[in-house]
This record gives sequence, structure tokens and C-alpha cells, in this order.
Amino acid sequence: MNLQELENLLRAHRNGELDTHAALQAIKNLQYEDIGYARVDHGRAARQGFPEVVFGAGKTRAQIVGIVERLVERVPNVLVTRTDAGVFGEVRNVAIDAEWHEAARMIRIQRDKTERGEGEISIVTAGTSDIPVAEEAALTCEAMGNRVRRIWDAGVAGIHRVLAERESLQSARVCIVVAGMEGALPSVVGGMVAVPVIAVPTSIGYGASFGGIAALLGMLNSCASNVTVVNIDNGFGAGFVASLINREFVPQQE
Amino acid sequence: MNLQELENLLRAHRNGELDTHAALQAIKNLQYEDIGYARVDHGRAARQGFPEVVFGAGKTRAQIVGIVERLVERVPNVLVTRTDAGVFGEVRNVAIDAEWHEAARMIRIQRDKTERGEGEISIVTAGTSDIPVAEEAALTCEAMGNRVRRIWDAGVAGIHRVLAERESLQSARVCIVVAGMEGALPSVVGGMVAVPVIAVPTSIGYGASFGGIAALLGMLNSCASNVTVVNIDNGFGAGFVASLINREFVPQQE
Amino acid sequence: MNLQELENLLRAHRNGELDTHAALQAIKNLQYEDIGYARVDHGRAARQGFPEVVFGAGKTRAQIVGIVERLVERVPNVLVTRTDAGVFGEVRNVAIDAEWHEAARMIRIQRDKTERGEGEISIVTAGTSDIPVAEEAALTCEAMGNRVRRIWDAGVAGIHRVLAERESLQSARVCIVVAGMEGALPSVVGGMVAVPVIAVPTSIGYGASFGGIAALLGMLNSCASNVTVVNIDNGFGAGFVASLINREFVPQQE
Amino acid sequence: MNLQELENLLRAHRNGELDTHAALQAIKNLQYEDIGYARVDHGRAARQGFPEVVFGAGKTRAQIVGIVERLVERVPNVLVTRTDAGVFGEVRNVAIDAEWHEAARMIRIQRDKTERGEGEISIVTAGTSDIPVAEEAALTCEAMGNRVRRIWDAGVAGIHRVLAERESLQSARVCIVVAGMEGALPSVVGGMVAVPVIAVPTSIGYGASFGGIAALLGMLNSCASNVTVVNIDNGFGAGFVASLINREFVPQQE
Amino acid sequence: MNLQELENLLRAHRNGELDTHAALQAIKNLQYEDIGYARVDHGRAARQGFPEVVFGAGKTRAQIVGIVERLVERVPNVLVTRTDAGVFGEVRNVAIDAEWHEAARMIRIQRDKTERGEGEISIVTAGTSDIPVAEEAALTCEAMGNRVRRIWDAGVAGIHRVLAERESLQSARVCIVVAGMEGALPSVVGGMVAVPVIAVPTSIGYGASFGGIAALLGMLNSCASNVTVVNIDNGFGAGFVASLINREFVPQQE
Amino acid sequence: MNLQELENLLRAHRNGELDTHAALQAIKNLQYEDIGYARVDHGRAARQGFPEVVFGAGKTRAQIVGIVERLVERVPNVLVTRTDAGVFGEVRNVAIDAEWHEAARMIRIQRDKTERGEGEISIVTAGTSDIPVAEEAALTCEAMGNRVRRIWDAGVAGIHRVLAERESLQSARVCIVVAGMEGALPSVVGGMVAVPVIAVPTSIGYGASFGGIAALLGMLNSCASNVTVVNIDNGFGAGFVASLINREFVPQQE
Amino acid sequence: MNLQELENLLRAHRNGELDTHAALQAIKNLQYEDIGYARVDHGRAARQGFPEVVFGAGKTRAQIVGIVERLVERVPNVLVTRTDAGVFGEVRNVAIDAEWHEAARMIRIQRDKTERGEGEISIVTAGTSDIPVAEEAALTCEAMGNRVRRIWDAGVAGIHRVLAERESLQSARVCIVVAGMEGALPSVVGGMVAVPVIAVPTSIGYGASFGGIAALLGMLNSCASNVTVVNIDNGFGAGFVASLINREFVPQQE
Amino acid sequence: MNLQELENLLRAHRNGELDTHAALQAIKNLQYEDIGYARVDHGRAARQGFPEVVFGAGKTRAQIVGIVERLVERVPNVLVTRTDAGVFGEVRNVAIDAEWHEAARMIRIQRDKTERGEGEISIVTAGTSDIPVAEEAALTCEAMGNRVRRIWDAGVAGIHRVLAERESLQSARVCIVVAGMEGALPSVVGGMVAVPVIAVPTSIGYGASFGGIAALLGMLNSCASNVTVVNIDNGFGAGFVASLINREFVPQQE
Repeated sequence: MNLQELENLLRAHRNGELDTHAALQAIKNLQYEDIGYARVDHGRAARQGFPEVVFGAGKTRAQIVGIVERLVERVPNVLVTRTDAGVFGEVRNVAIDAEWHEAARMIRIQRDKTERGEGEISIVTAGTSDIPVAEEAALTCEAMGNRVRRIWDAGVAGIHRVLAERESLQSARVCIVVAGMEGALPSVVGGMVAVPVIAVPTSIGYGASFGGIAALLGMLNSCASNVTVVNIDNGFGAGFVASLINREFVPQQE
Repeated sequence: MNLQELENLLRAHRNGELDTHAALQAIKNLQYEDIGYARVDHGRAARQGFPEVVFGAGKTRAQIVGIVERLVERVPNVLVTRTDAGVFGEVRNVAIDAEWHEAARMIRIQRDKTERGEGEISIVTAGTSDIPVAEEAALTCEAMGNRVRRIWDAGVAGIHRVLAERESLQSARVCIVVAGMEGALPSVVGGMVAVPVIAVPTSIGYGASFGGIAALLGMLNSCASNVTVVNIDNGFGAGFVASLINREFVPQQE
Repeated sequence: MNLQELENLLRAHRNGELDTHAALQAIKNLQYEDIGYARVDHGRAARQGFPEVVFGAGKTRAQIVGIVERLVERVPNVLVTRTDAGVFGEVRNVAIDAEWHEAARMIRIQRDKTERGEGEISIVTAGTSDIPVAEEAALTCEAMGNRVRRIWDAGVAGIHRVLAERESLQSARVCIVVAGMEGALPSVVGGMVAVPVIAVPTSIGYGASFGGIAALLGMLNSCASNVTVVNIDNGFGAGFVASLINREFVPQQE
Repeated sequence: MNLQELENLLRAHRNGELDTHAALQAIKNLQYEDIGYARVDHGRAARQGFPEVVFGAGKTRAQIVGIVERLVERVPNVLVTRTDAGVFGEVRNVAIDAEWHEAARMIRIQRDKTERGEGEISIVTAGTSDIPVAEEAALTCEAMGNRVRRIWDAGVAGIHRVLAERESLQSARVCIVVAGMEGALPSVVGGMVAVPVIAVPTSIGYGASFGGIAALLGMLNSCASNVTVVNIDNGFGAGFVASLINREFVPQQE
Repeated sequence: MNLQELENLLRAHRNGELDTHAALQAIKNLQYEDIGYARVDHGRAARQGFPEVVFGAGKTRAQIVGIVERLVERVPNVLVTRTDAGVFGEVRNVAIDAEWHEAARMIRIQRDKTERGEGEISIVTAGTSDIPVAEEAALTCEAMGNRVRRIWDAGVAGIHRVLAERESLQSARVCIVVAGMEGALPSVVGGMVAVPVIAVPTSIGYGASFGGIAALLGMLNSCASNVTVVNIDNGFGAGFVASLINREFVPQQE
Repeated sequence: MNLQELENLLRAHRNGELDTHAALQAIKNLQYEDIGYARVDHGRAARQGFPEVVFGAGKTRAQIVGIVERLVERVPNVLVTRTDAGVFGEVRNVAIDAEWHEAARMIRIQRDKTERGEGEISIVTAGTSDIPVAEEAALTCEAMGNRVRRIWDAGVAGIHRVLAERESLQSARVCIVVAGMEGALPSVVGGMVAVPVIAVPTSIGYGASFGGIAALLGMLNSCASNVTVVNIDNGFGAGFVASLINREFVPQQE
Repeated sequence: MNLQELENLLRAHRNGELDTHAALQAIKNLQYEDIGYARVDHGRAARQGFPEVVFGAGKTRAQIVGIVERLVERVPNVLVTRTDAGVFGEVRNVAIDAEWHEAARMIRIQRDKTERGEGEISIVTAGTSDIPVAEEAALTCEAMGNRVRRIWDAGVAGIHRVLAERESLQSARVCIVVAGMEGALPSVVGGMVAVPVIAVPTSIGYGASFGGIAALLGMLNSCASNVTVVNIDNGFGAGFVASLINREFVPQQE
Repeated sequence: MNLQELENLLRAHRNGELDTHAALQAIKNLQYEDIGYARVDHGRAARQGFPEVVFGAGKTRAQIVGIVERLVERVPNVLVTRTDAGVFGEVRNVAIDAEWHEAARMIRIQRDKTERGEGEISIVTAGTSDIPVAEEAALTCEAMGNRVRRIWDAGVAGIHRVLAERESLQSARVCIVVAGMEGALPSVVGGMVAVPVIAVPTSIGYGASFGGIAALLGMLNSCASNVTVVNIDNGFGAGFVASLINREFVPQQE
């Protein structure tokens, strides 16, 4: 709720257009819709071109479909992450234009394809096995109106593979680097570019990779100063933040 | 090294202006200076308005002074982090305009004060004890040419304290949120703004805070999608990335 | 065993109504019944209106049914937690009025529905995926004679969702807050109310949530002073303690 | 802020007694005072008889004294935890009746000694070395208007020591159990009483106690259903929650 | 190899009864038989009444049967731990008198039933779910010639259950205590008896039990001085050591 | 309290020699003395020849001296572990025959030197740095009436050093093996002897030894079946249990 | 890329045999082939007799086959690790001479069988269950042109088993030691030989072995100075490094 | 002890030159000298040109001097690691030619300077703060007869710094790479060379570096196949193994 809206409400109340009880309810219900098992958040997304996102893991199929049904009435772009083809089958019943992305295990509804980014977002993976997480990031970036460059399998043990991409990396507005195992790639990319690098550790590896902890720690301790980190396998979050960085800045009216 | 420079070198070599051995050396020595215990990285910083940064911990006093001495010859702004007043005393001998910031334990030399940011950077702390880390971030942002808004002691257990700052947070280009203990503040701020939030866990706390691990994990698992994380107590890194986000995007010429 | 009972035993023994061996046996067997694989604890529960609880995980179906069979002879309310529909099928054979609660994976026999609480117990979840654990808590509270208010999906990243429930939270005798991921909600609720908050971390999340550790640590480090914590996913324990807090205090006769 | 206050504000604004800007400020500033390095939270504490608490660790001496100075103007009881005798010396300059408690490393100002509890709070330690944490809890309970019974050095390896206290434990409204090493005492006490048990792990121990982790885990996994847990060495938090439990319940007027 | 044997070898070699190469081979091959995938250890077990033990996990069915086949030719008692009914079916083909113990998942061949213990071994579990591990210990003790007393489901949260067994515990030569969750029972038993207590943590529990870590740490930090610990779920090891303690001491002839 | 004592009490009470209140008190006070900060446990130790032990860490000097003063009135042998020479100075004031053992940081009062063991206890260290912990074990064993054989610096990387001690190890009734770093020595010794081996991990090491965790885990996972483990650096506990094992078994009269 | 190649490129470019764009491309594409989901690294392997290795886990069947197809065109020896018989079935379609090694779960194509080692590589396992990892190492060594000696099931608890292999171990150029549980064997072998020992922790064990962490830590803390460590279950890595050590040293021409 | 020596002993015994008891003693005492607190290992080192190494941490000054005194009588080169200048002062009394190396905190006695390596050993550090550990490695290599090339401060965030050293790295027989923080450098170096890389994690870093754990895990998970790892800060171990690799292979006579 921005101040403008609150001011309007206060004015309406003062003028007697709104009684006190109605003013209280209006404030309370302004921003979400309670459907029992979820409080669906509206408003901001629709206004700003964000996709609404449903984190699929841990929700029943009926819950996911119910939430998507509410969302598509109000926002043009919707993502469902960490889901499966079965859910997709039912989501298509309420959104015929939903797409299924197997590698990323993501459902995407993208009705608004306006380009909103200042530059390009480069997404790099260290290995072939990191591609699913990187695709989750890439699909998110696209759903938020960005051009994406995909650079797969450019890990540090064959350093010439990433060096060969130096120029395209240096021309991006922001880089996403996806790596498992020792998670060293973000440091190398970070040293090559002058823009923010979002590091995504993946759970790829075995033994002392501890499901991505080794990569996560490596990235948190990066000696490159322009690296920030998201949760293990969180391609969506990386794509979301990269999109915010790439979006042209228009100061909000206070 | 961008392609233009390489092309020039190749041309010069082809034209016979450079013999083969000299071409090899030029490529090799283009970007750093080897002073024995350190390879001082020049070039990029001077060109782009970045401060050079010396991580003070684990270096001897003589090493720090030696490195600073080389840096100030080439770049206008220099930061020394995680250092102490004793080192500062000697650094002043080689840079009379060095400043000492006690709370942040940082030396700052800032000869170039050009403003380079598109908007403002808001920095919020959860508690009073988190201020030193937040100051490290703030001083870094300023050294990189940004306006900073400081909001101290606005933790979630008194949620009205951060809600009261909603407008100033929403008008920033990027927010830095510094918190120890449970590290919950970035999620709350993240839910309030439509810009990137850089979360800095601090080692403030005791018992099961495990020197900042609790805050770090909390931030990595943030349910707000616009949050990325840096290392525990890494105020410098947060300030550095925030500055890159706030800087106007000018695509590099390839 | 309270002192009164022991005194009676000693008196009876002194008066010769009980020989020495019998006195020893009486003390030994007073409080439980040994059925081989379990020592079924009677007495306290029946006297005080507590349900008896069988932790289902790790017990065979036959063991669970055997224990329930003994319990229903003596206590009106019985809960079986962490079990499945197959066990429920057999439990119905020995307790026709047993209910199956799918979301909570709990069997409940509730013959005594006396209301015993002073006020209401509010139960809040951060997300939709936390509902099963919260339902375990809610069903336990109800089985112990409490009124429960359920507030689902009110996590901190959309802070207005929980702020909208401020009044109902503030009118409760005790709050249970169930959250996974970063586990920040108990701190926010704790700051809003003047009653005890019982925080239940859930295993909801991925990557660096480490099966609930992130949420657990967040809650243990809460900056709100009125928060205590139970084990990950321990909805039953939270409901049990909340019920004890909500019960009117009548000092035991010594 | 309760609804009544908000209603009054809205009414005053409607009646023209308050202009719009003043109404916004009033809402914003209602509950805390910004003194630069801290936002001092007033109001609730004064109204409800809570002591205000300053967590001393990580704050400078000047900061602590400054905060205490503001607090004593408004609330009768103030606690400063995790501090030292040097700070106490300066606090006495602004609060002549401040007391120093060496074992608990706590400063206490207690001008309001109204008794507010329904029953007694029993505090038990496993060993002699756990007394400082237990004293922090005891002093907090007393500052919040409760009668406290102290039972020191009653650990499980000499089970008769705690069994001998059965009656006094059973007559309490709530028990606090403080233990390091294996942290087993809360389970035993929990099995003996029908009231909530707040378990406080301490950092007492060596080797595989890992600074209190062993005790913390033991308590989180307690097989007694009436046990909740606070952070390692958090005597204050345990005392605070125990006081809330022991306070007579008067539903807030909505 | 004891000295006597070596002396004999040396004498035989000196006397020329053995050539040098044969002496070297004899020393090398004295104590085990190499069957390719395993070096089966003979000798000591047969002489001293120990059962031979095959750790079943991670071995193929054929390997287990092959090893058992060699063992039964030389030693009377053989145990196979962590195995399944399928393996048992094949083991019976090479040892018709093999027994299958479902709860402990153990195969036992016991041809020598000589009693070898000085006293009795008491085995206690905290809960019903700990019985399988305790049975592994009990069957091992019996295979090594001991009388065993089984005391199941006597956990600390109902302290009277274990207090009722005080006498039988105090009359044992050694106690084994098996517990999951918080692992507090060994401390209580340890305080009640004047003999060694072998603590066996189990993986029973959930959430912060971390598969037995909580119980393991609790036991390692026991405040009872007579407690030693074995690996999580290692019933066999506990039974083995308890048997060694209970065996009458006859100094080896050097 | 053994049954005989309880029977006598019951008889006396029945005969009217004891009134009911006195009987209750007698039961309650039979076994310890409450001196405020500690409940000093008497009785069992004096009867059975155990030394009383005061764990010095975390207790004030006055507390230690106070406890020792009570103990020496009733038991002949007293140990104070983890203490320092300053405490020893004051302990000598209340026990002129107290000895100070620098390496083990232990005070020992040993008035009863009866030999109580069946055989010898062998104590082995892996390295020179492990000697202090091993001395704590050795002094405890001696205080409990045992002969001890010390074998220092016989770690596995020079396997001939421990092989050379094979005979003396094999003639012991029980072995204590003290090792830091990788903690491999107990497995080797365990494979060489037919008696219980008590493994003591030490905090000797650096880096990934994590203060003894590596050694602790190594010992818990020992492939030798006769190894049990105590806490890191717990020489006292190892000595205590070894003494119980070495003591001749005399079944308690029930 | 060695200097010679670069020099040639520069010369060709100077002489006008190569235009500038072509020179840039040649440098960029010299060493790998981009097939979309992978950048296949050529050149070095073919030149030096290394096998190319495909880490199978996390790659789809089609990806593995695709990569193998490219590799077999250029290098004689190819390994696919962590794969299954189904993949093998398809790999045979593109490489008829591929072999399937069940125990090691490895596909091997070995067209070049030149012996390249100076000496022999000894590979030792602690137990039977460690054989699969050891086989992965052995097959790798053979594919890289080495003679291998396999010594299975020679763990430390029966120390004579490894002592009996002393001579063969001492004659090797390098030893690989594979062990789970406490991971003690590398220290013992390390103390017996004067060559490098590569320790491979395995995930064999249970409870506090934590999937190989105990073995890993044991090996990292080895008191034998000639031990280095690879990741848990990383038989391939150990075999690879051992082969590099065993290869005759021929200084590269600069 | 090699077989030849044993054969000689057996022959001497057979011929009557040695009686049985003497033969047993000879075998037992062949390889070390027992000086009470240490068993000094002789023989192998003197024969093979290894330095003897004393790990200084945890030993008293007198113990170190005592051990050095014995060693210098028999071996030409002795190292004392993790020690201080005070110890050095006393060591000079027994070895006038001892050298003190401040950065590495190491005492070195090097009387034999024979070069024994086939090639050169390259040692690289990621940062300036890693130099002390790298120096420990370098001094060890030199003491074992190797030529060393030192490359300091060539971390991955400025990738050109290490790329510039490609040739010198590629010409080495073995590389040691020393890095803290994210520990990424060994992967990059590993990908550049065709020889073994020994990775040494250092404790340099802060926050989530956890004293070197991040670097250690990164190195264990290296995607470069030629990397093995030693303990955190274990420069000595890395230098020792590198020396063994660099030594010309001469098969032992069996």
C-alpha cells in the first residue's frame, strides 16, 4: 500500500464517504484474497509487470490449481516452480496457454511479453548437470521481460571455455552463474566483469559436496567483490533479482 | 583486457611495431604489478571509478602500507577494511588525506567524489549492534559515488519500526539489510519493496546463532524473492554490489 | 504418585493391612502397565483430562493397536500421531469412534469434549505447505479442550497478511506459529502480542533449509523475548504446551 | 497500537481535530523514539508491567547508558543483561537505585514490585555451574512480579536429588530447567509435573558438548511433551516467558 | 599370534625343521584365509568362544554366504548382522541350524551354548521403537554365553518406570542402555548402578534428532561417570563389549 | 538406596520407631547434603571405594574448596579435575595431604590405597601431546585402586611402536587408548587384544580435526568390535569405567 | 594451449596468412567443441594418453551418448563413471568395443593399451564393501596405462592382514587406500611405505559415519605425512592422480 | 624393517649367533628409541634422505629440544613445525646451525643439501595472507632436496594473474596450490597442468569460511581430476608429498 492510497482512504473517511468500519476493512483487505489454505497476494505484481509465482513443492495439486485460477484473473504472467507434468495437465484446464518446461520442472503462463530490461542477462553454468537450475532462472528472466544469453558447461577446470565468453559476459547488465561441486565459477566470472554476479549453488556433486553446501560456501566466500548468493538450486530467485537489477530505475512517487 | 586492446596489440605486432617477444610480455603484464608478496591489480578500477580495496586481516602492517602506496599512485579512491588504528597511523604517512572510521574499522581515501548512482541506497540494521557492519557498507557505497540513507535499529520484533520507514525504503534503487540473530529483517523489507535487497548476516548473537550461521541460513531461505546474500559481516561486499546495481548501465563497447 | 497416595500406603502397611512385600509391589506397579513391548502409563492422564498420545513412527501396526486398546479402557481421549490410514483401519476395530485426519496424519479418539481453556489459542502458519504441522497442533489443542483459531498462509514476505490479523492474535491466551524456510514469522508475531508464542519450525524448504534447521535456528535466536521453540515439525508438542498454558491454574494439593 | 487508539485517531482526524499530515505522523511515531543508534520502544511495557530489557553484548557503554536513561523516564523496571560492573558504574549515575547482580552479570532497576503471578515459578539447575544462567532467569521473573523457588544442583545422575523436590515442582505454575552437558533434566522434570517446562540449555560442558549444542538438541528432542526450549544460555528469555505464563489471563479488549 | 607360537616357529626354523622361506610364509599366513573379496580371520575366535560376525550391509548375498561357509567350518557360533530374510534363506543351505531374528535383522548360528559370564547383563530401552537395536545387543550377548535381562520402554519422561527396575539393574555385572531422541536414559541408569553402562544411541526420533546425533551427543556428555558410548544403532558392539566385561578374567599366558 | 535400607525404614516405621513424617524425611535426605550451590552426594562412594570427583571447570574457587571440605569428612579419596595450581593452594588448607598433578591439571587426595583390581590397566597414547589426558585417566585408575601400565607415543603411523607392546597389551584386563588427530589407534589396539578397549579422543590436532571431532568420529566408527568411546579429552571418565571393569564382580545382595 | 602454438598463430597472422578475425576465432575455438549442452574438451587428452572421462550422474542418457560419440572420434580411451547398464546398452551402439564393469558402475573404452607407468600402483581396501570404489580406481589406472595390484579387505582391526602385504606395498610407486568407517588404514599404510598414499574415504558405514565424513576427517588428519585425500567415493580421482604420479616425468617444452 | 633385515636376523639366530631372546628383542627394538614421553623413530629417514619432523604444537619446550637432540645425532635434516622463536632459542643450543623461519613458524636444520628431485615444484598462493602456509610447504620441499618456484597472490578473481604463470606451472613436476576463502584456485591450476596438484586449504577468511572448511570442501569437490587435498593449513604435508612425487622412482629391492 503506498501512501497515496492511504491518503485517499483517509480523505474519503473524513468526508464521510466511508464509515469507520468500512475504512478499517478496506485497509485490511486491500492487498490479498483469503482462499482458506492461502492468502493470494494481488496488486503489486499486476501494477509492475512481475509474474506471480507459486512454489509448487509441498502443495497439493488442488491447491496449486486453485491458486493459479485466482492469479490468472488478475495478472498476465504466472510461474509455477518445482512441479510436475501431472500438475501441468490440470493447470491447462484453467489456463489453456500454459507451457510446460521439462528441464526446469516449471509451468509458465506468459501473456505479457513486453521487454522491460535495459540490457541482457547472461546465464552461465559450470556443467551440463547444472542446466535445469539455470533454465529455471532463464525462464523467469524471460517471463519478467528480459533478453537472456545462455552459456552452458563452461566450468573452471577448462578455464579457456569461460575465457572464450569474456566479451559476451562483459556486455551483460548482470550475470547469473550456476555451479555445483566446488562452486568456483562465480569468482572467475566475477573477476572478469564489472556488473553484479548472482551465484546459484546447485546440489550437483557427491560425497563432500553435501548436497550443495560446498558450492554454497565457496560462493559466499568468493574473493570477487561483486558476487551475491541465493539458496541452493534457487534458479527462480536468481532470475527474479537479476530482472530487478536489469529493469530501468524509475523512482516511485512517494 | 577488452578486445579492442588485444586487437591493437595484434595490429601493432603485425605491423612490426612490436616484436613477438614484446607482444607476449605486453599481454602478460597488462593488468597487474608484481611486488613480491602481492600482485597489485591496476587498470579496471582507475577506468571505472571503483575504489581499490585492501582486505586488511591476515596481512602485516608493512604489506598493507606497501600495497596502499602503489594504489594511490594510480587510483583516486582506496579502502582498507578490517584493519586498526595502528595501521591507519602508518597509512597516513603515504596518504595524508586518509580517513579513519572507527566503528567500521576502515581506512578510506576518497579523492574522487563524483556521484555515480541513479538513485539512493537504503541501509537498514535490525539492531544497534549491527551498526559497524552497516557502516562498512555505507562507507563503501559513498566511496563508490552513491547517496546513502541510514536506518538503524529497525528489527522485526517491533515491526512498526520498519513499517514506519516504508516510504523511504520504497523509493530506493536498492536496499541493504544488515541483521544478526534470526536474520528475519531482509524478508520483511523484501516484501515491502520492488527492488533488489542485499542481505548481510552479522555475527551478532549468542548460543545457537553460531557466529552468524542462523542469520545466514535465515537469509538464504528468505521467502521474499528479491533477496540475495553475502558472507557473514561482509558489509563491504554488500556495499560494492549495491553500488554496481545503482550505477547507470552503459553497455561496454565490444 | 502424589504424597497423599504414598501416605495412605505407608499407613496401610503400618496398620498391617498390607504386608511388606505387597507394599513394595504396590509402589512399583502404581503407575504403569507392562505389556511386553511397552509400559503403558496410566493415571495422570485420566485424572487431569490429558489425552494419551501414541507416537506412531517406528512402531509396528500391531503394537499401536495393542497400546490403543489398553488406553481406551482408561482414558477418554487418545491421539496417535505420525501414522497412516492403514493403521487407522485397524484402530477402528478397537475404537469405533476413532477419526482419521489426513492432513495431520493423525488418529483422534475424543470422547470427552469438556472445554478447559481460559482463552483461545491462535495458530498461524507462514505458508500453505506448513498446514499439516499446524493441523497436528490444532487437533491436539482441541483434544485437550481448547478453542482454536486457524490463520493460514500469513508469512512475513507479505507483512500486511499477518498485520491484518493483529487483533485476533492479540486477544489469544497463547499463540502457536508454524513456519519453515527462514522461520521469521514467530519474531513478528512475538513482537505483536503480549502472550507466550510457541514456535514450530517445519521441514518445508529446500537447499540451505536443511530439513528445518534454518527455521529452527531462526526461532531459537528470535529477538522477540516471548518465543519458545519445539522440535522441527512437532505440532503435537506445541499444541500440548499451549493447552497447558491456556488451562486455568489450580495449585495441586500437596 | 490497539484498535481503540487507531479508532480515536481516525475520529479526531475526521472531526478535523487532526490534519492529514499530523495523523500520518501520529501513527508513525506512536510507539518508539529514535535516538540515532537505537529506536527505543515505549508504551506497551509501561502499560503492562513488563520490564524493558537492554541486551548489553555488542553495545558500547555510552549506548547502554543512553538507552537506560530514556527508559527510566517512562518505565519503572529496567534490566540490562550480559553486561559488566564497569557499565553498572555508569548506569548508577542515571539510576541511583540500580542493582548489580554479579553471578548473572545483570543490572536491574526495579521500582515496581507488584506481585502479578498466579502461582510460583520453580527454577532448577542440573549443576552448580549452571547457576549464573538460572539466576538470570530468576532475576527476570522477580522483576516481572513473580515468586521464584530456586533448586540448584539436582542433575539426573543422582536422580534422588530431583525426586526429593517432586512436591515443590508439582505445585508450581511453570518450571524452568537449566542444564548443560547432556541436557537431560528437563525430560525428567517434564515427566514429573503437569505444567509447562521451559528448558534452557547452557554452554557448560566440554568436548562434544560443543558449547551447548548437545544440551540444546537433547531438550528439543525431549520425550516429555510439555517441554519447550529457548536459546543456549538464554536465562532471560526463559524468565520472560515463564512470567507471561504465570500472569493471570485477562482478555484484551478488542 | 602369541609369543609361544612365534617361539616354536623360530625353534623349528633353527632346528632346520623349517626352511627360511617356509618360516616367512608361516608367519604371514598364520591368521587369515584369503578368499578374494575377503580375508577371513580365524583362530582367535575359535580359541576364545567369540562368535564370528559378518557385517551384512554392503556385501552381496553371495559374499555373505561364502564367508559364512568358511566360518562354520572352524567356529561354532556365527552372527550375520544388518541382513535380511533373503540372505537367511541362502545361509540355511550352508548352515541348517541358522536362526532368523526378524526384529534385529540378524542371522545367528549358535552351536556352543556354554555359559561364560560372571553375572547377568541388563539391557534397557527408553522406548518401544528402540527394541530392534536392543535385540541385536541381546542376541549377541547370548551368542557369547551370557544371561540377559530385557527391560523395554522405561524412558525418563516416566521416571517411575526405570526406578521400578532399580534392583534388577543394580544386580547386573554390566548394563546396556538403548535410547533415541534425547538419549537421557543412560545418565539416569548410570547414576543408579555401580557397574559400567554401555550407552547405545538409536536413530529413533525426527527433526533435530538428526538420525541419532542428539542421542549420541547426549550420551557422550553424560554427567554419570560410568557411561561409555558406541555408534548409533550399534547394538552388536554394545553386546560384544558387555560380554567381554562380564567374562571372568584369566590373565593370558605370555 | 538399596532395598535392605528401605525395608529397614519401612519396618521401623511399622513398629512405630519412626513416625510418618520422619520416615518421609529419612527417605528424602538419605543420600545427599544440600550446601546451597551444590547437593553433595554421599554414601555410595564411601561404601564402595570410589573416589569422589569434583569437576572443577565452571566452579568458583570457593565452591570447589567448600565441596572438598565436605567430602574429605566422609570419603578417603577425592579427585578435583580441570583445575589449577591456585585452587590447589587453597585445597591444601583443608586437606594437607592433597597432591598436585600438573600435566593432568588434577588435585588428588588418596588416603585409601587398597588394591581393588583383578588385573592391570594398560593406557596407551598415540602421541606425546596426548599425555595430559592419559595422565588424568591414569591418576583416576590409581585412585580407584588399580595398577596402571603407561605406554606413551605409540601411534599408528609407526605401527611397529604399538606392535612392540602387543604382549603387555594382551595381558591387561582392560585398555584405555588416548588419541587425537585421526583417532585410529583404538582400532589397531582393539584388533590386538581380547578385552574391552576404552577410546578417548583428544582435542590434539588442527584444521579438520575440529577440536577432536575427527578422532571422536573415528573411534565411534571403529571396525574393532571391542571399542567403546567417551567424550573428547575425558580421561577421568575412561579411568573410572576401566576401574569398574577391572574390579572383581561381587553380585549385590538384593 | 602451449606457447609454441600461440607463437605460430601470431606468426601466421603477422605474415598475413591469417586475418585478424580468423586469429581471434582460432584462439577462441582451439580447445573445445560446443555441442549445446556441453563443451567437449579435446586436444590435451589425445596428445598425452589420458582417457576422457564423462561423469554420468545428473546427465541424461542422450547427453552421455552424445558426448561419448564425439569423444571416440578423437581419443582412444574413454571412461563413463557413475552410470548404469541401461546407458551402457546405448553406448555400445556408438562404440562396439565398450566394456561394462558392474561393481564399479563404469563403462570403459580402451583402444590404447600402451603401458606408461614407471612402477606398479597398489590399491588396498579396508573391507569387502569398499571394493566397488577401489575397482573404479583400478579400472582408471589401467585405462591410463598402469599395472595395478589389488589388495582387498585388509583393514586395521586385523592388523596382520595389512602387515602381511608390507613388501608388495613397499615396492609400489604409489598406493591408493580405500576405506570407510573410521578410515584408519591410510595412516597405517602411510607409515609402512616411502611413496605417496592417496586416501579414498568411502560412504561405507552407518550412524556416526555420516556417509563417509568420519573416514574423510580421519584421512585429512592422518598422522602419516605422505597421505593426501580425495572426495568420498572418488575412486576415479584417486586412480587419475596415481597415474600421473606413476608416469615418467618428461619436462614440457616451453 | 625390510625383508632382508629379517632374513639376516633369522639366519643369525639359526646359526646360533643370536639366542632366541636376543632375536625377539632385536626385532622389537629395531626401529625406535623410547625416551619416555616419545618414541623417536630412526632408520628410514636417515637411509632415504627424508628430514625428521617434529610437530611442535602441544609439546613442551623441553620435549621438543629433547627430541631434536636425539634426531640430530642420526639424521642430517630436521624440521620443527608450528613452533616459536623461544623454542628456536633453545634448539640452537643443541644444533648451532638451526635456522628460524618467521613467516612459516618453522625451525630447519639442513645439513644435507643434495638435490633429489626430477623436476621443479611450483607453489602458488591465492592471496598474500596464504603465504605463511605456502612457505611451510616450500621450506619442507627444499629440506627434502627440491627446487621450488614460488608464485604468490594469483587468486582466481583476477584470473589473468594465474594465466600469466601458465608456462612455469606447466613445466613443473608437481604443483602445490594454497588458498583460503572459496579455495577455487586448485581447480583452475588443475585444469591448466598435466601433473598432480596438491591443494592446501588455509584458514584465511571470515564468516562462512569457518576456519578453512569452505576452502577444504571446495578443494575436495574440485572438478579438476588431478587434485588431491591435505588438511587445513598443512603446508608441511603438501611439501612432503610433493617431494615424494618429484623423487626419482627406484623400485625397492624386495
